[in-house]
Amino acid sequence: MTHRIAVIPGDGIGKEVMPEGLRALEAAAARFGIDLTLEHFDFASCDYYAAHGQMLPDDWFEQLKDADAIFYGAVGWPETVPDHISLWGSLLQFRRRFDQYVNLRPCKLLPGVKSPLADREPGDIDFYVVRENTEGEYSSVGGKMFEGTEREVVIQETVMTRTGVDRVLKYAYELAQSRPRRKLTSATKSNGIAITMPWWDERVKAMGAHYPEVSVDQFHIDILTANFVMHPDWFDVVVASNLFGDILSDLGPACTGTIGVAPSANINPEGRFPSLFEPVHGSAPDIAGRGIANPIGQVWSAAMMLEHLGHPAAGQAIVDAFEAVLAEGDKAVLTPDVGGQGTTEAMGRAIAERI
Amino acid sequence: MTHRIAVIPGDGIGKEVMPEGLRALEAAAARFGIDLTLEHFDFASCDYYAAHGQMLPDDWFEQLKDADAIFYGAVGWPETVPDHISLWGSLLQFRRRFDQYVNLRPCKLLPGVKSPLADREPGDIDFYVVRENTEGEYSSVGGKMFEGTEREVVIQETVMTRTGVDRVLKYAYELAQSRPRRKLTSATKSNGIAITMPWWDERVKAMGAHYPEVSVDQFHIDILTANFVMHPDWFDVVVASNLFGDILSDLGPACTGTIGVAPSANINPEGRFPSLFEPVHGSAPDIAGRGIANPIGQVWSAAMMLEHLGHPAAGQAIVDAFEAVLAEGDKAVLTPDVGGQGTTEAMGRAIAERI
Ligand SMILES: CC(C)[C@H](C(=O)O)[C@@H](O)C(=O)O
Ligand SMILES: CC(C)[C@H](C(=O)O)[C@@H](O)C(=O)O
Repeated sequence: MTHRIAVIPGDGIGKEVMPEGLRALEAAAARFGIDLTLEHFDFASCDYYAAHGQMLPDDWFEQLKDADAIFYGAVGWPETVPDHISLWGSLLQFRRRFDQYVNLRPCKLLPGVKSPLADREPGDIDFYVVRENTEGEYSSVGGKMFEGTEREVVIQETVMTRTGVDRVLKYAYELAQSRPRRKLTSATKSNGIAITMPWWDERVKAMGAHYPEVSVDQFHIDILTANFVMHPDWFDVVVASNLFGDILSDLGPACTGTIGVAPSANINPEGRFPSLFEPVHGSAPDIAGRGIANPIGQVWSAAMMLEHLGHPAAGQAIVDAFEAVLAEGDKAVLTPDVGGQGTTEAMGRAIAERI
Repeated sequence: MTHRIAVIPGDGIGKEVMPEGLRALEAAAARFGIDLTLEHFDFASCDYYAAHGQMLPDDWFEQLKDADAIFYGAVGWPETVPDHISLWGSLLQFRRRFDQYVNLRPCKLLPGVKSPLADREPGDIDFYVVRENTEGEYSSVGGKMFEGTEREVVIQETVMTRTGVDRVLKYAYELAQSRPRRKLTSATKSNGIAITMPWWDERVKAMGAHYPEVSVDQFHIDILTANFVMHPDWFDVVVASNLFGDILSDLGPACTGTIGVAPSANINPEGRFPSLFEPVHGSAPDIAGRGIANPIGQVWSAAMMLEHLGHPAAGQAIVDAFEAVLAEGDKAVLTPDVGGQGTTEAMGRAIAERI
C-alpha cells in the first residue's frame, strides 16, 4: 500500500526548505520500507496567483481530497499579493474545507539550540500547543459601514460553535491524558472578551468532567504569554482558540531559540480528509532567496506526517537525526539562526545522512 | 490650586500596593509643593459587590467625573465574583465612559532587575506600548444561539471605528515623533483576521502620511510576540488594538523581569474626563494577603499621574527613587519577585525615603 502525499512548496523560503523536507522524508521512507507516492502542485503560491489571478484552481478540492496527507511549505509574498488574499485563498481554505480542526504544535528546547531565555536547558521546555484551527476569531463574517467617511465602522465576528470547541478540547484532554504529567492549560480572556471566552471556560470545565485524571488550569492570554517567558516549564499541553493558539505557537518556539525549527500538524483526526503538515514559520521574504533558511521546521513536519500515517519509528528516526545534527554543532552545517554559517541544503543533507 | 485624586484600591494586592503608591505620591507632592486632595472610594471592588450586588453605585459617574485623575489598584476576586462581571462592571466602564482611549504602558528593563531573557541589560529594552483602550475586540456585542444544545453558536463582534482607531494612531505617531529613534511598530494580524486588520493597516498607513519623519513597520501579532523575546531592542513605540495591546503589555514587562513593576496610564488626552493610573498587574489572588507584592507598579503609576498632571520633575523623582532602591539591591527591602525577602511596605518605605 502506498501513501499519496501532495507536495505544495508555496512561496519564499517554502520553496527552499521543501527539498530538504523531502530529502528527509525519502530517506526515512527508504530506511523503513515505506512506499510513498509524491504528487507536486504549483498552486497555493503567489506565482500561481500572478499567472491565474487566483491562488487555487477551481477544482483544488477534487485534486487534493484523496491524498493521504498534504506536505506544505509556506505561503505569502506581500510584495505582489496582500497576505489576507494569499492566505485566505490557500492555507485557510485547506484547514477549513478539509476540516483540519486540530493544529498541533510542539514547543521543545532542542540540544545545541540556544534559548533566548536565561538558564534554560533542553528538558525545561517541552510542551504542545493544541490550537483550534477552523473557526473562532478567523472568520470571514463582518463588514464595513459608512466606508471612507469619518463615521466608518468595521466589524468582524468571532464565531465559536459547541461542536467546534468541544472536539478540539477533547483532543487536547486526550493528549494531556496520554502524557506523563497529565496537565492541561486553557488560554482564555474571559475577563475582557465577555461573550465567547466565559463560554469557552465553561466548555473546558464541562469536558474536564470526562477526564478526572487530567489537572487543568487556565490563564488569561496576556499573563499566559508572560508565563511562557517566565515559567515555560509550567506547561505540558496548552489548548487555545484559533487566534490565541496562533500567538502561543509562535511565542513558544521563539522561547526555544528559533521559530525556524517549529513544525505543525493540521489534523483532521477522523481521517475523512487529508491532514496537512507544515513548518510554523512563514515564507520569510526578508531572507528568501539566500539559501539560509533553517530546514528543520519542514523536516520535523515530515516526521509528524510519518507518525500520523502510522509510522512512528520512521518519524522518530527523523527527529533523532536533526537532534544529532544540532547537538554536533558543526558551524559549517548549521544555518545562521542556530549559530552557524551553513546553508539550507548543507543542513538538509547532514540530516538525511543521519537517517 | 489643588489636584483632586480619586483613590480606588480595589481587590487583593490592589489593597496592599495602594498605600505604598500613596506614600510615594505624598512624598513627591511634599517635596515639590504640589497640593493634592485625595478622595477614597471603596467601590469597584468585589467586597463592594458582596455588599451591594453590583460593582459600582448608580451614581459612580457623577462621583468621579470631576476628579483630576483616578489612582487605581487592581480589581478581581474570581473566587467570589467571576472576572467578566467584576472587570466589565468597573475598570472597563471607567475606560469607556471616561473615554480613556489611550492605554500607555512603558516596558523598560530597570537596573538591578534580572531579565528572564539571556544577556539583556538596562538600555536594551526601553519601549512603549500604546494600546487602544475603548473598542475593538473588547465589545459587549454578540450573543448565543441554540444555547445548551449541540448546535450552540456563540458570537462576539469586534467593533472598530475610524474615529477610535485614528485618534490612538495619532497619539502613537506623536509619541514616536517625540522620541530620539522615531520608530513606530504596528501590531496587526491582517493575514488571518481578514476584515478589521487589513483595514487597521490602511489606517496606519494613512496616518503615517502626516508623520514623514517617523519610520513605521508592522508585524503580525504572532511573530511580534516572538520578536519581543528574540529582539526586544527593535522596539520604540508599539501601537496595537485593545486585545493585542493587552497581550503585548503583559509580555513586554515579563521580558523586563517582572510584571510587578509595570505601570499604566489610561488617558483621555483631551482632558474632558479624568485619566486613570494603575499597575499592569492584576489583583493576584495567588499572593494576596501575604504582604509580598511588589509596589513599584503602583508607585510608577503615581509617577505617570504626576507627569500627566503637569509635574514631570515630581514624576521623575519617583522614578529615580525606585530605580535607586532596585540598583542598591538590598535583599531585606526587595520583594521576592525581584530577588529579595522584603515586604510590600518595606520596599514602599525605602522608595518614599529616597524621594
Ligand atoms: C483585567 C482585564 C480586563 C484588563 C484588560 O484586559 O484590559 C487587564 O488585563 C489590563 O491589561 O488592564
Ligand atoms: C499565515 C497565517 C494566516 C497563519 C495563521 O495565522 O494561522 C500562520 O501564522 C500560522 O500560524 O499558520
